[in-house]
Amino acid sequence: MAGNSFGQLFRITTFGESHGEAIGVIIDGCPAQLDVDLDYIQSELDKRKPGQSKITTQRKESDTVKILSGVFEGKTTGTPIAMLIPNEDQRSKDYNHNTNVFRPSHADFTYQNKYGIRDHRGGGRSSARETAARVAAGALAKLLLKSQGIEIVAHVSSVGKIDAPNVFINDVDEFIAEREKNIVRCADPATAEEMIEFIDNVRKNGDTVGGKVSCYIKNCPVGLGEPVFDKLHAELGKAMLSINAVHGFEFGSGFSGSEMLGSEHNDIFVKNHLGDVSTLTNFSGGIQGGISNGMPIEFRVAFKPVATIMHAQQTVDAEGNAAEISGKGRHDPCVVPRAVPIVEAMAALVIADHWLRDRNSQLPVSN
Amino acid sequence: MAGNSFGQLFRITTFGESHGEAIGVIIDGCPAQLDVDLDYIQSELDKRKPGQSKITTQRKESDTVKILSGVFEGKTTGTPIAMLIPNEDQRSKDYNHNTNVFRPSHADFTYQNKYGIRDHRGGGRSSARETAARVAAGALAKLLLKSQGIEIVAHVSSVGKIDAPNVFINDVDEFIAEREKNIVRCADPATAEEMIEFIDNVRKNGDTVGGKVSCYIKNCPVGLGEPVFDKLHAELGKAMLSINAVHGFEFGSGFSGSEMLGSEHNDIFVKNHLGDVSTLTNFSGGIQGGISNGMPIEFRVAFKPVATIMHAQQTVDAEGNAAEISGKGRHDPCVVPRAVPIVEAMAALVIADHWLRDRNSQLPVSN
Amino acid sequence: MAGNSFGQLFRITTFGESHGEAIGVIIDGCPAQLDVDLDYIQSELDKRKPGQSKITTQRKESDTVKILSGVFEGKTTGTPIAMLIPNEDQRSKDYNHNTNVFRPSHADFTYQNKYGIRDHRGGGRSSARETAARVAAGALAKLLLKSQGIEIVAHVSSVGKIDAPNVFINDVDEFIAEREKNIVRCADPATAEEMIEFIDNVRKNGDTVGGKVSCYIKNCPVGLGEPVFDKLHAELGKAMLSINAVHGFEFGSGFSGSEMLGSEHNDIFVKNHLGDVSTLTNFSGGIQGGISNGMPIEFRVAFKPVATIMHAQQTVDAEGNAAEISGKGRHDPCVVPRAVPIVEAMAALVIADHWLRDRNSQLPVSN
Amino acid sequence: MAGNSFGQLFRITTFGESHGEAIGVIIDGCPAQLDVDLDYIQSELDKRKPGQSKITTQRKESDTVKILSGVFEGKTTGTPIAMLIPNEDQRSKDYNHNTNVFRPSHADFTYQNKYGIRDHRGGGRSSARETAARVAAGALAKLLLKSQGIEIVAHVSSVGKIDAPNVFINDVDEFIAEREKNIVRCADPATAEEMIEFIDNVRKNGDTVGGKVSCYIKNCPVGLGEPVFDKLHAELGKAMLSINAVHGFEFGSGFSGSEMLGSEHNDIFVKNHLGDVSTLTNFSGGIQGGISNGMPIEFRVAFKPVATIMHAQQTVDAEGNAAEISGKGRHDPCVVPRAVPIVEAMAALVIADHWLRDRNSQLPVSN
Repeated sequence: MAGNSFGQLFRITTFGESHGEAIGVIIDGCPAQLDVDLDYIQSELDKRKPGQSKITTQRKESDTVKILSGVFEGKTTGTPIAMLIPNEDQRSKDYNHNTNVFRPSHADFTYQNKYGIRDHRGGGRSSARETAARVAAGALAKLLLKSQGIEIVAHVSSVGKIDAPNVFINDVDEFIAEREKNIVRCADPATAEEMIEFIDNVRKNGDTVGGKVSCYIKNCPVGLGEPVFDKLHAELGKAMLSINAVHGFEFGSGFSGSEMLGSEHNDIFVKNHLGDVSTLTNFSGGIQGGISNGMPIEFRVAFKPVATIMHAQQTVDAEGNAAEISGKGRHDPCVVPRAVPIVEAMAALVIADHWLRDRNSQLPVSN
Repeated sequence: MAGNSFGQLFRITTFGESHGEAIGVIIDGCPAQLDVDLDYIQSELDKRKPGQSKITTQRKESDTVKILSGVFEGKTTGTPIAMLIPNEDQRSKDYNHNTNVFRPSHADFTYQNKYGIRDHRGGGRSSARETAARVAAGALAKLLLKSQGIEIVAHVSSVGKIDAPNVFINDVDEFIAEREKNIVRCADPATAEEMIEFIDNVRKNGDTVGGKVSCYIKNCPVGLGEPVFDKLHAELGKAMLSINAVHGFEFGSGFSGSEMLGSEHNDIFVKNHLGDVSTLTNFSGGIQGGISNGMPIEFRVAFKPVATIMHAQQTVDAEGNAAEISGKGRHDPCVVPRAVPIVEAMAALVIADHWLRDRNSQLPVSN
Repeated sequence: MAGNSFGQLFRITTFGESHGEAIGVIIDGCPAQLDVDLDYIQSELDKRKPGQSKITTQRKESDTVKILSGVFEGKTTGTPIAMLIPNEDQRSKDYNHNTNVFRPSHADFTYQNKYGIRDHRGGGRSSARETAARVAAGALAKLLLKSQGIEIVAHVSSVGKIDAPNVFINDVDEFIAEREKNIVRCADPATAEEMIEFIDNVRKNGDTVGGKVSCYIKNCPVGLGEPVFDKLHAELGKAMLSINAVHGFEFGSGFSGSEMLGSEHNDIFVKNHLGDVSTLTNFSGGIQGGISNGMPIEFRVAFKPVATIMHAQQTVDAEGNAAEISGKGRHDPCVVPRAVPIVEAMAALVIADHWLRDRNSQLPVSN
Repeated sequence: MAGNSFGQLFRITTFGESHGEAIGVIIDGCPAQLDVDLDYIQSELDKRKPGQSKITTQRKESDTVKILSGVFEGKTTGTPIAMLIPNEDQRSKDYNHNTNVFRPSHADFTYQNKYGIRDHRGGGRSSARETAARVAAGALAKLLLKSQGIEIVAHVSSVGKIDAPNVFINDVDEFIAEREKNIVRCADPATAEEMIEFIDNVRKNGDTVGGKVSCYIKNCPVGLGEPVFDKLHAELGKAMLSINAVHGFEFGSGFSGSEMLGSEHNDIFVKNHLGDVSTLTNFSGGIQGGISNGMPIEFRVAFKPVATIMHAQQTVDAEGNAAEISGKGRHDPCVVPRAVPIVEAMAALVIADHWLRDRNSQLPVSN
């Protein structure tokens, strides 16, 4: 129960350190006969990879993924799918300074105390490099969900205090195309420009800044999520909070819902023009009692600013003595542009897992 | 993997419906030789029980807990501990109206669709009555943690738009004593008065309102939490989001952290007056890289307004036809006063589980 | 991970001690809409209950089961099913002698050392009384399997050195009727008589004797069992070995298969008269590569003699000093007659779990 | 829950097919600071690798293992340890004949039916090649156990009807040295010679034969194993039954115990010359009530003959029509010599897992 696995029926286990030989993931539980589009998986990794623009870290990794098992003649076979992503551009000497000194708001101090040993190079296992493995696995989950008509999409909805206006998603592919037109991955072009300029200034100051990602799940069938502890939003929340630098999660009305009256907040059920039941509002964020209700699932994820800044900071060393440290290495001034595919990947893993789990809620209709 | 269990090493499984014979919980994995203070467990249940004041539901349940197994001569034996809480004051006829009609923003619609059958009486399994079982198990977890010096405390930090000022907790017992002086469980007396008056007005209008609970964990040792998916805050987040009516979770700087610069947000390490390492600020909320750093753990939980209001509302019936429904039964105008012990219980379950998990992070010092 | 749960998707957790207030079980993951025949569940418990004949223990327990949750109007609802069986006829003073003295080949010594504390009355948690909870849960699993046409049946195939001839099962109900005609639960009447006389003599000598149970699963569909660790026979093996007093498990050709040549052992595939594929022989015991192949599943379980005998025996006390102990309390001279429903129950739990697990092996045919 | 993981706290997940690019394993939960002796791990793999003698398959694989993560400067760091073993000598065309025809007593038929697709090359995932990953992980578990003084050793105790005499193990290293002097891995030299000659004759006849492996665990501390389902012998049984070709498992008195009287079978406790409690006999096989009692743990594993023989056999094809098949490819005439390190590896994984689990049975002595 060491915490490197996620999901119950669509279950992934990741491994690898920032400056080790490779990172990777095993996916256990993907149903057989799914078409595996390797180009799609690679394209998702490309959205997360470092060095993609002036507002991301300049570490150069191609993040080329290789499938080692579980796929035969282009289809899944029901056996575990291992994916490997070699590390290429480690510059471990950039990290000599943090061998015995703890970087503020990093995981150096806690790993050292928990394990009595740590791979300090590039943050070792605590590096967000690990999320590349999640994106690879999540891309496969997305392919599974797409085969069932379910679509997941996210974008950057704030950087610092710059908020994007609410978006309405009609066609997911068009939305993604619009979002990918700018390097900050905000679907509103005017706000995107403002965000980019702000991040670039922050970067020039050797500083970093936080932001938020908003995510939407379309065509999720009614019934996903398990009472009482594995509520769909509880699982989404855990998934998002497990992403490096995330400090908050809310769905539907979220924190602002705590300020509302019941008479304002209740989502009224109606029969829609297709004869299906839907709700007039969606303060429930597509989830009621922990189970999807067929409306779009909506949630938001808050990221703190990256801890590595290019300024000198006070800290302590391994013996607890005062020390000074200044940021080296190549780092992101703001993580949210690269976090968009990670948020989507983790959401896909949760939905795929619960789609499988829900298949056992009822007996088969007839036998 | 049906979702009624929580925790890995300190693992609970709950059962029971709102209007069934009883609810209960099995705790598997509690270490042997813990002193079981049944009075303390009962006192925690008393803080959650219905009918305790004018601003809670008037359903009358004594919520008397009985231990069926796992305790011998007042101590745990290492075997599963079963706790039973009989239901006493069901008024199932109050729920005849929702047999075939879906209450807005309730779980009626989603349960019916997921399972093709549901116990509609009092919300069945989706009722917050289930949380009594969590409070009983959480009280045992608190006893375990207390034996290790770890303390957990929460209070109501907002109701609607009424926010309590930030609190500083010196002595946990004193803080709880202060909090228990008012029926809304806010540690700031002046704000408490304002909140109570507001909730009472909302109740008289047949409406409901949301609120927030803030929670603090003191003396948590360094090292709890598992990379990468079972980060301590990810597990706390899931635990809180699994509580009925919760729509958001944040820790440390939370959502406001997404608006900050790294140079503002970083928590500087210093050697404190005891010679231990601590941080000057606590935007990290006591958790770095998913692992506790020895500072107080701090998080906030947002609750939406209760869905049952005493007004007529539009909805649909089981056939999807338009229908009208109005609230019956006995309900809370605002859940946060009764949610305080539930938040504490779930936090205790997470910390107890990770305290056990962390015992295996390293080899024993010598052999 | 304390070991009181079994199964992944059809998951049970048992609790309770021999001389506590009650024992019980929670079943989590049973699909909704299954008809619950409480009389059938009780009739299975009756086959395991003590005091049913002269060759079983004379402890008197009605073992009346009560369902506390998860069933509404006679059907499962998809929520956890709690079953409770009160203890009625504890005679704890019979066990005063083993408070500080370890009974040979019992679990007294190991529990005391593992936990530093133990409920010595009637063996506490290590008592086979716990298996009543398994039989209750297994009876529900049997109802689930019966709804899918799958049937499970066992009988006593040896007592000491008395072996029953191989049986051929045509109609399961007839087989059970025949088996239930004698108190030893062997389907061969002549052997049964011999066994009963032998056990009765052993009992009169204050001694005990071992035996074997053979089990058959009919109409199990092809495809149950998961590679590579959760092979169907590995899960059946674990299930059987977890029953008190079991010392061995074999399926198909079993231990004698280790003496055979491949040319003798291979099961030749043929198209049978129904046009289905079957095998001419069944040395594979219905399982190939860990997955059911549609042939009857066959396995055997070896039980050691009960440890409590009515003779004085040497032993040590809690301080390790030499002591003498003689059997008190009411005990079985041979467990296999009462083990038959336990073996069936555990087999049903494994098959139900894997029937659910297999529903996710492939994508749905069309969407 | 797809079945490719084993263990709870020392948890492994394997991947890979016989003729894919590589096989491998992730170990999650190994405590930090263990010295990793890569040469020892490789030496264990060498004992399992194909082509090592005239009585094993002639497939040539160096089975060179590479550690990709989780080890830093020669020590474990507490993060997941990934090990990779490339496949080198696949001859997939040897398997063209079984694309559409099911080999008798193989997993072809069951995999095809379970998944609707299969990698037929070399048996795909059902090949015993997967066990190399287990041996690599098991070698790490052995290093962990060795650091605690626990030792595990097995040897071939029968081939066909040739039984080795009982062995007494004084020094484990000497025992292994003796065992490794012959290619059949039987510790009794005279019997070994007989076995080798027999296997060689069987091989020349194009046939195969079964056998048994006996395993011993020395210096296992008292207290390992969890009641009630995760009894130590139940977990060992599952582990062994999950190895390809295993048809039976027994511990201590095993199947012959079912023929004994209680007065013969009970193991009398005595204080031994070191002042520790031990038992005069060991029919319990070192395990009482599912928990280790400090005596040597002893069990036996029965392997059926390899299914691939060099004779023509009747079978059916994918359409269920009669067909003929004859063995091609390179296969073992008898698996037990190569199974010895696999049995040891699986035993080590079980004991390491339960050693970790038992660390949480009691509260720490003082705080």
